[in-house]
Amino acid sequence: MRKKKLIAAVLMGLVVAGSGSIFAQESIENLGFSLDVVWLFIGAILVFIMQAGFALVETGLTRAKNATNITMKNVMDFCFGAIVYWALGWGFMYGKDALGGLIGSDQFFYGPMILDIDNGNFYKSWFFQVVFAATAATIVSGAMAERTQFKSYLIYTCFISAFIYPISGHWVWGGGWLAELGFHDFAGSTVVHSVGGWAALMGATVLGPRIGKYIKGTDGKISVKAFPGHNIPYAALGVLLLFFGWFGFNGASTGIATVGGGGIWSGLNIARVCVTTTLAAAAGAAGALVFSWLWFKKPDVSMTLNGLLAGLVGITAPCAVVSPGAAIIIGLIAGVLVVLSVEFIDKVLKVDDPVGAVSVHCVCGIFGTIAVGIWGNAPDDGVIGLLHGGGFDQLGTQLVGILAVGAWAAITSLILFLVIKAIFGLRVSHKEELIGLDLSEHKAEAYAGFQIFSNT
Amino acid sequence: MRKKKLIAAVLMGLVVAGSGSIFAQESIENLGFSLDVVWLFIGAILVFIMQAGFALVETGLTRAKNATNITMKNVMDFCFGAIVYWALGWGFMYGKDALGGLIGSDQFFYGPMILDIDNGNFYKSWFFQVVFAATAATIVSGAMAERTQFKSYLIYTCFISAFIYPISGHWVWGGGWLAELGFHDFAGSTVVHSVGGWAALMGATVLGPRIGKYIKGTDGKISVKAFPGHNIPYAALGVLLLFFGWFGFNGASTGIATVGGGGIWSGLNIARVCVTTTLAAAAGAAGALVFSWLWFKKPDVSMTLNGLLAGLVGITAPCAVVSPGAAIIIGLIAGVLVVLSVEFIDKVLKVDDPVGAVSVHCVCGIFGTIAVGIWGNAPDDGVIGLLHGGGFDQLGTQLVGILAVGAWAAITSLILFLVIKAIFGLRVSHKEELIGLDLSEHKAEAYAGFQIFSNT
Amino acid sequence: MRKKKLIAAVLMGLVVAGSGSIFAQESIENLGFSLDVVWLFIGAILVFIMQAGFALVETGLTRAKNATNITMKNVMDFCFGAIVYWALGWGFMYGKDALGGLIGSDQFFYGPMILDIDNGNFYKSWFFQVVFAATAATIVSGAMAERTQFKSYLIYTCFISAFIYPISGHWVWGGGWLAELGFHDFAGSTVVHSVGGWAALMGATVLGPRIGKYIKGTDGKISVKAFPGHNIPYAALGVLLLFFGWFGFNGASTGIATVGGGGIWSGLNIARVCVTTTLAAAAGAAGALVFSWLWFKKPDVSMTLNGLLAGLVGITAPCAVVSPGAAIIIGLIAGVLVVLSVEFIDKVLKVDDPVGAVSVHCVCGIFGTIAVGIWGNAPDDGVIGLLHGGGFDQLGTQLVGILAVGAWAAITSLILFLVIKAIFGLRVSHKEELIGLDLSEHKAEAYAGFQIFSNT
Repeated sequence: MRKKKLIAAVLMGLVVAGSGSIFAQESIENLGFSLDVVWLFIGAILVFIMQAGFALVETGLTRAKNATNITMKNVMDFCFGAIVYWALGWGFMYGKDALGGLIGSDQFFYGPMILDIDNGNFYKSWFFQVVFAATAATIVSGAMAERTQFKSYLIYTCFISAFIYPISGHWVWGGGWLAELGFHDFAGSTVVHSVGGWAALMGATVLGPRIGKYIKGTDGKISVKAFPGHNIPYAALGVLLLFFGWFGFNGASTGIATVGGGGIWSGLNIARVCVTTTLAAAAGAAGALVFSWLWFKKPDVSMTLNGLLAGLVGITAPCAVVSPGAAIIIGLIAGVLVVLSVEFIDKVLKVDDPVGAVSVHCVCGIFGTIAVGIWGNAPDDGVIGLLHGGGFDQLGTQLVGILAVGAWAAITSLILFLVIKAIFGLRVSHKEELIGLDLSEHKAEAYAGFQIFSNT
Repeated sequence: MRKKKLIAAVLMGLVVAGSGSIFAQESIENLGFSLDVVWLFIGAILVFIMQAGFALVETGLTRAKNATNITMKNVMDFCFGAIVYWALGWGFMYGKDALGGLIGSDQFFYGPMILDIDNGNFYKSWFFQVVFAATAATIVSGAMAERTQFKSYLIYTCFISAFIYPISGHWVWGGGWLAELGFHDFAGSTVVHSVGGWAALMGATVLGPRIGKYIKGTDGKISVKAFPGHNIPYAALGVLLLFFGWFGFNGASTGIATVGGGGIWSGLNIARVCVTTTLAAAAGAAGALVFSWLWFKKPDVSMTLNGLLAGLVGITAPCAVVSPGAAIIIGLIAGVLVVLSVEFIDKVLKVDDPVGAVSVHCVCGIFGTIAVGIWGNAPDDGVIGLLHGGGFDQLGTQLVGILAVGAWAAITSLILFLVIKAIFGLRVSHKEELIGLDLSEHKAEAYAGFQIFSNT
Repeated sequence: MRKKKLIAAVLMGLVVAGSGSIFAQESIENLGFSLDVVWLFIGAILVFIMQAGFALVETGLTRAKNATNITMKNVMDFCFGAIVYWALGWGFMYGKDALGGLIGSDQFFYGPMILDIDNGNFYKSWFFQVVFAATAATIVSGAMAERTQFKSYLIYTCFISAFIYPISGHWVWGGGWLAELGFHDFAGSTVVHSVGGWAALMGATVLGPRIGKYIKGTDGKISVKAFPGHNIPYAALGVLLLFFGWFGFNGASTGIATVGGGGIWSGLNIARVCVTTTLAAAAGAAGALVFSWLWFKKPDVSMTLNGLLAGLVGITAPCAVVSPGAAIIIGLIAGVLVVLSVEFIDKVLKVDDPVGAVSVHCVCGIFGTIAVGIWGNAPDDGVIGLLHGGGFDQLGTQLVGILAVGAWAAITSLILFLVIKAIFGLRVSHKEELIGLDLSEHKAEAYAGFQIFSNT
């Protein structure tokens, strides 16, 4: 098809005598296409390394006896996820719209070799999309760490990548009903993070807490035990790798690098996105650090690291439509919010989320999506928040999206976990949990040769 | 030369009155050149970080008492390798063809400052090539881990980067005789991985197994001991960094990002390459996981990680000429193959390869090269495999390349190791090996301050 | 403004009948702009990950009891640094020149949403600049490791990012007086590294050595104790991540990827920069390895890793104006120099710099800046070193820059540390230092569950 176009261009060039410009024009189009592809693929490669970031954060913030299991889960959710996202997920998300905006319906098990500029949608976009799907899936592993059966984890993760994530994704990014409504989620605070976060909440709830986490005293009061992570440098390196990858996550969500039609989906906006992403993350860490320092009388390391991630999740939806100052405010709020949420979920709800995944991804994902309706300031693209004279219009639409996607993700993942629990079992035995999943599930220590004392 | 071209363009512009398009055309060419360079350099930078990946995989899968030594070897093989590849390797690989396609013969110790579009081959390409050379060299260190003299290792690695790798590389990528024959190895299953893998096999064989690896019982039977790796998260992070870098390794092997002439060497094909690379790696891990689970009754972590790498090595040659479905099949086979090969080399051949480098890089490198002749489907570029009606033509050519490059790498590296053994000695003393190479070679512990119990 | 230009172009297109070339020309300009932005942002993202590199090097080369504190410092100096560099630093560095080249004076707390090609300086450049500012700031943490109050560290780091780094940066890169003078520092041997290095020297001096570092014997002689790093693989991974990021640091300092006007600031020169950077780093490691081997009778791991960094710092100023051969010589000298400097500062000056930050960044930063005046060979851009017939002109200018920036950084940071010491205190208590900063400052172990024996 590209060849046909070229011939047509050459013919037209002959017709429009005295001008060689049409051939030049054709080449410019090709160049622009190539530049867009380069940016999109670099972005996807950056998002890919977030898998290592998640693996390190989760490993670092949990106990040494489960480190092999956690890294295995993080590697395998990407691997199984990629295969099922090729087989099913892509089609549900970006296939031809069906059922009035509810679901995509073709391009399953994509096979053709065809690669060209006009007909290359699968090839051009699949790689960028699969790493987003993998992000949503991998969020869950942290909340379910240290007590989930490896087999059941693998089954679950296939369902989120093949089915749960793609269908709500279709609603927003696949041209479905929420896109029609004007819901704005630039890079996925809701589409990716809160979907993963809701599933994480359901998973942790169905599983129940780790042994020894909540202990009823003789006075009937429940004391909450903290299990300190076994490797803070891993966690910090993981957070920095996530930050690094997030520049691809947010930055390449413009979809193009060329100027295009201008506006928020233009390559011009890469610059704003990187500025707001940096500032929100920085403010998130700063907010959590100061707030935890005041509250707990110590500059808490895991709260601060989660604060940085909270800032990133919070800016993911609004990164393209807010000013640098607003990004700092959004980050600060997310940083405080994540500390409050971690404490609330741990101490009040008594849901055991070992790494704070629900607080970071679900709570701050929701907040970031709301932030679009408050600080959004891109009138040319139809996004005007409360503080910029848009009233409650955008805010209302954002809430509809948050509720719809949240309900979908929460309900489907709850059903999924309950079904897996009924059929295969979800949790390892009491004894296996105490020994640690490395030895009980994989017959392999993570740190052979090192003295590890028990800190159950 | 570029200046001359510009003047010619301007003159032609004056001739073709009424049209400013020729100047535009010139600028488009420059832009295309710049975009290609950007992609090539990003690719090279990604491949560079594979050095960290190799270092972590090898460190993680071996014992704590040798961790300093292994990281030093991995850092220094790049450093010495870069210098000798500048001095000699580049000239042998990409210098003017001599001896009828056998060797390159100029551009040694490249010195000129000249940089322009037409005359910039060394500058444009050397960086991308040196990281490939370093990959071939660093593969060997894993197979020779925990018992090789540091000094001898450095001598060896200079020879592979200056001489062994570049000469067979010239045959395929330097316009040599295998290129003429139609041998297809897109990103180096044979040129890079099996060269490193053959040398690894020779090195491990000449060295002999680690102390205590194969113990003859009183009944004459030999029992094989496994030495578990001391840090599985390192190994997993290493594999993810390798996966990350591999998108540069395969993706930038198109050489360009612009559409160019279309076909497999076009920037358009970056998209396919990233899709097939992702799917093959995923399938490799999945294949090894499931196969090891069935065989050993546990989801084996080191097998799974090696399975992922096996999928990557296997898709490296065919990534540009196969469909997504074929990529999954290639990955699955590679994932099973690597488990079989690791067991075969360890238990039957009794060659002690601590990290499975031979199985991953040599065996799966060969398989990936064969895969081109089976699943290859790029008729416009003359690559048609057995399953797409190409008969045994491509397959036969692939086998010629595998045998020729394999024989070259195996024989030259065998001679090299034997000569080094005779002159300098290759292996540390019995006592040094038991103490560990960190203290005996570098007078430095890797983990000062930590309790490590002996797991010799 | 861009829209206006487009309309003008279209109008002109109508006027110049028979030619569509003006529109093509406009699009080419846009494409070039987009490509430049893509390269600049990729460069910045690569520089960003150097934060992880620094964190790992510093953590790995110090003791386990301070690992949490060091990672926290490295994360937070970026986070606070980014916010103050947005609020103040950017304006001081790149705001409108004031006081005759001494300081920038507007664009503080940058707020506007405006994003276009002609008016996008803040958005286009801030992200690339903030990661450089963060590099200068983070260098200091290594020299002050294991004994600095966390609170005081945060205060200090804000001042360097808001004030010390930007003002001398303005002199060279903001169009200030050193730029006018012809001082050449392509990517920041002086502007970034020696500024950080001077502050590191002042910080370590004001703090004093760690407890037990210099012990006076009964004979009045002072014995110098080495505190071995607790995780060499971290340090090696950190160095490789720094090397990886340095390709962005140096490579994207061309500012553009397009050919532009040619010369050293052209995208063409990306190729040279990557070649010289690779070779100098390799030669730095090789030089330090061989020199330390000869001197200390062992291939010293921390010296070799610092040698690699020394080569990188040394080539940072001259990378765009020297040949590959000169890069190797510069790297080798830097590699030897860093070993001599580490020994001199440790044994003679008796300043306790736990990771060798002063030797790597200050000493080799100065050497690299001098190297421009010796090996520089870019006559078209007015940089001609001593060995290429330029006499002492460039060399003299380089020395002026080294002295001016050095005096600024040393004096302001000395005052800063003394003021902080007087008001808040700079150092933790004797007891806190012995316990380790992880428990005393953050109430958190870095490696919960592992046996760590004291190696104070």
